[in-house]
Amino acid sequence: MIIANSIAEVRAAVHSARAAGEAIGFVPTMGALHAGHLSLVDASRARCDRTVVSVFVNPTQFGPGEDLDRYPRTFRADCEQLAERGCWLVFAPSNEEIYPPGYETFVEVGSVAEPWEGACRPGHYRGVATVVLKLLLMVGADQAFFGQKDYQQSLVVRQLVADFNVPTEIVICPTVREADGLAMSSRNAFLNPTQRHQARALWKSLQLAEELCQTGERRTPILAGRIRECLAEAGITEVDYIALVKAGTVIAIDEVVGPTVVALAVRVGQTRLIDNHQIG
Amino acid sequence: MIIANSIAEVRAAVHSARAAGEAIGFVPTMGALHAGHLSLVDASRARCDRTVVSVFVNPTQFGPGEDLDRYPRTFRADCEQLAERGCWLVFAPSNEEIYPPGYETFVEVGSVAEPWEGACRPGHYRGVATVVLKLLLMVGADQAFFGQKDYQQSLVVRQLVADFNVPTEIVICPTVREADGLAMSSRNAFLNPTQRHQARALWKSLQLAEELCQTGERRTPILAGRIRECLAEAGITEVDYIALVKAGTVIAIDEVVGPTVVALAVRVGQTRLIDNHQIG
Repeated sequence: MIIANSIAEVRAAVHSARAAGEAIGFVPTMGALHAGHLSLVDASRARCDRTVVSVFVNPTQFGPGEDLDRYPRTFRADCEQLAERGCWLVFAPSNEEIYPPGYETFVEVGSVAEPWEGACRPGHYRGVATVVLKLLLMVGADQAFFGQKDYQQSLVVRQLVADFNVPTEIVICPTVREADGLAMSSRNAFLNPTQRHQARALWKSLQLAEELCQTGERRTPILAGRIRECLAEAGITEVDYIALVKAGTVIAIDEVVGPTVVALAVRVGQTRLIDNHQIG
Repeated sequence: MIIANSIAEVRAAVHSARAAGEAIGFVPTMGALHAGHLSLVDASRARCDRTVVSVFVNPTQFGPGEDLDRYPRTFRADCEQLAERGCWLVFAPSNEEIYPPGYETFVEVGSVAEPWEGACRPGHYRGVATVVLKLLLMVGADQAFFGQKDYQQSLVVRQLVADFNVPTEIVICPTVREADGLAMSSRNAFLNPTQRHQARALWKSLQLAEELCQTGERRTPILAGRIRECLAEAGITEVDYIALVKAGTVIAIDEVVGPTVVALAVRVGQTRLIDNHQIG
């Protein structure tokens, strides 16, 4: 497995592979890899000849007071897992390689980035969209793989790639969950055993909403209320949002009449967790 | 010569040429072609196997009350000139092809876009950077060619391409001038004979600054004053800016101590004209 730190190395390697007729898959990550990331590597390997994984904790998507400094960094273990999983090239650039002195251009994201994470984390998606665009253009992959767990992020990336005509196909892969349903996240490492137990309520509440919907409850304020109760029973009361939207959009709906996504964000202790699930 | 209206057509044509090992040059234009544009086509043909020229009057770079509606459109004549000059493919998309319904992502340009045109035409470079990025990613050329006449635009494009890691080399080509020195511009067509005569003062004033500098006058406020006088003598009193900056930047200097660009914008009647020249 190649470990590249510079853009030039990645481009040279991809150029050679491309010249040999190989299709390139790309999985952008912030490291601290878990089974969710590895499922993206699997998806890439199933569809492409060579898989590039970037490991870069992007400072521009963290706000002041957020967890940039304490974001988990496990590069050696990440590389071991990636090598085992058949990754071809790990791209691990420095901050200066991505944002050299004099850097000043950003992506101005639109309405899809406004609610939820965009409202709770000002500038977050501006940073995400900027680094994703840069990484996509650095790597020049045929396909890039993102997880459904970050539902709004997947919409932001799709909008970015469509609007800017980025010549990479975006593939969104299913959320990978722990045995008890908790969505895999690098931030789960921050949870103590009590919090980890509480965090089961996220998936439980999303499943509850699906069941209620299947048994006839279509009113979204009622469904959101039941989700909130379910979270509260587990001791989770700091809820950033519970949203029910038309699938593939951030447009809130009053009634479940077609494919619908329930998205939520909560705080468990100091740790912010998100999850989502399609119902209806 | 191929005339393509859709992104898919351009991509398919470029993909075939690229697969045959050919290098692709790209000249983005807003049509109303003149010898300046054609010199960019020549530069592209000298360096690349196939030259793509886009003709698209980009609405997002015009402000309210600007000349979007009356911007000259001469598509048939443009195509004749391009065919004669050896252009391989003309890309002439509709507004809807470039900005489909739901479009909402823009480039947020930085300090390089703030003064001069950026200050006089709010949002102008946001629109320019957005459409240039989109066109570069649609066409996927090896090299793209821009004129030095739009000095600040060339800086914005260079910054955009560097910051976003766009895999296209940017080539800036010298300004082409009429016999009397007036920089070629599609907007020159708006000038009546009297205004056309007055407009000679732009180049005359830039040459004056160069001469003064060569004979020892290095103080930029004095040089700017002499330019202003020279313009006023020709009856040009509506001056948006006269700037003397370190070449390759928008950083104003007090004294000419190295390569220096003089950039100016004026109004002659209703028509806004810009020009620039490197001195020092």
